Amino acid sequence: MKIVSNIKACGGQQIQFTHAASTLNCEMTCSIFLPQAAETEAVPVLYWLSGLTCNDQNFVTKAGAQKVANELGMAIVCPDTSPRGDNVADDPEGAWDFGLGAGFYVNATQSPWQEHYQMHDYVSQELPKHIAQHFNVDASNVSISGHSMGGHGALTVALTHPEKFKSVSAFAPIVSPLNCPWGEKALTNYLGGDRAQWQKYDACYLIEHANSTQLPILIDQGSKDSFLEEQLKPHLLEQAAQSASYPISLRYQEGYDHSYFFIASFIEEHLRFHHRFLSQ
Amino acid sequence: MKIVSNIKACGGQQIQFTHAASTLNCEMTCSIFLPQAAETEAVPVLYWLSGLTCNDQNFVTKAGAQKVANELGMAIVCPDTSPRGDNVADDPEGAWDFGLGAGFYVNATQSPWQEHYQMHDYVSQELPKHIAQHFNVDASNVSISGHSMGGHGALTVALTHPEKFKSVSAFAPIVSPLNCPWGEKALTNYLGGDRAQWQKYDACYLIEHANSTQLPILIDQGSKDSFLEEQLKPHLLEQAAQSASYPISLRYQEGYDHSYFFIASFIEEHLRFHHRFLSQ
Repeated sequence: MKIVSNIKACGGQQIQFTHAASTLNCEMTCSIFLPQAAETEAVPVLYWLSGLTCNDQNFVTKAGAQKVANELGMAIVCPDTSPRGDNVADDPEGAWDFGLGAGFYVNATQSPWQEHYQMHDYVSQELPKHIAQHFNVDASNVSISGHSMGGHGALTVALTHPEKFKSVSAFAPIVSPLNCPWGEKALTNYLGGDRAQWQKYDACYLIEHANSTQLPILIDQGSKDSFLEEQLKPHLLEQAAQSASYPISLRYQEGYDHSYFFIASFIEEHLRFHHRFLSQ
Repeated sequence: MKIVSNIKACGGQQIQFTHAASTLNCEMTCSIFLPQAAETEAVPVLYWLSGLTCNDQNFVTKAGAQKVANELGMAIVCPDTSPRGDNVADDPEGAWDFGLGAGFYVNATQSPWQEHYQMHDYVSQELPKHIAQHFNVDASNVSISGHSMGGHGALTVALTHPEKFKSVSAFAPIVSPLNCPWGEKALTNYLGGDRAQWQKYDACYLIEHANSTQLPILIDQGSKDSFLEEQLKPHLLEQAAQSASYPISLRYQEGYDHSYFFIASFIEEHLRFHHRFLSQ
């Protein structure tokens, strides 16, 4: 691991580092906020998964989360959104919704993507191990959140591994890649044409087929989000959760769009939501 | 005036607009945060002046100020840091510390700069009139703050026009352009070689020669700011204020650097500081 920068922020430390990610077969850049409490105790951890086109820095610079995270004594880990590097395959037309910056938190099975695009295993297995080895965190006290494609990532990772997380939340998540253009494009390429192989990365499917372990779930969705009707479709998750008797809290926030201003407006409530379950 | 964007943020509106700035002889982009309270009453205004290389967006996206500003019912106006456009002269070598993005909040007297670089008049005269005409603000209830070059701007504009402001604050300001390389370069070019002409843009000179109107002044300075010793030199302002019996609050914040993480760490305290005087 190589520390790129370590900057004091809101009483804690905002750290950016690189490490060799074996699941992704490339070097990855990642950021972590460590609250002051980490100087003396192993602190709970929130994983934050970002959306299309983002990297590890968007949340760090724009969400304004550090002050409350420091107050609550919570670390926040922000991975990148895809494998990176000159050797990593990208969309042949350089589209922003597939390839680099758009790993969709799946394990690709199709060529040429499967060599590097194993983001599900990276964020759910390898990165947590790396974080636990190098930083003063409580690896048994973990929650996860994300935005848009990262909201899809947070929901699917948590629903697949409910034993690893205390709670999950999302801002404007893609709730069903089986049922939106972004998902169709990404999963066709990463996973192939057999849609049965997509189900394990679909939050609606997963919540309908969840075992008895139910996680606390909080979702915020802006009512003026330009992607709401075509791509995000939170009502599908609401329906799936109802049919599975899986309680979720889905809130429509009047007038908010898809930007980081929306995240900055409600991140404090999400941190306090997770803190309730992380501190039990 | 043309509205570029209007995004809901923390209960208020984050607005970016362009307008023809006659003092600068070019079109300018500016941002304003309007708290929800502005829907029903004329709200107090904080002007924020950014530093070298910045534009109207740095504070808007990185400072995390909107939530507390909305709570306090305070508008925040963020102008650009220099005139802009293809016709505006720039440093011949494209340096980042002079020319575009580096107007230093002075009225240039030297060719070719004087045609556009009139940032002191723009931020102290033209922009406040424009804001008062187009937004629901209380033009008699105004404070000012800024960072680095913008901290120099906030201090010099407020000390030159103490009747216009209720309070002033700064993060890591350039306190004496007469006594640092950034100031020497900029003022030699904008104002010419006669250093007596620089004095009216030097916060140390201005505080030593202030009339009886004393403004509340709060300054935060990170102890690990890499520009502290060569460029910023806050002790010079402390000495000048002492010799003039002008009370200022200068705080060294242990371990903080020159970045927006430093600003995000203390902006809430600055907003609450200004609010005390704006609400009187």
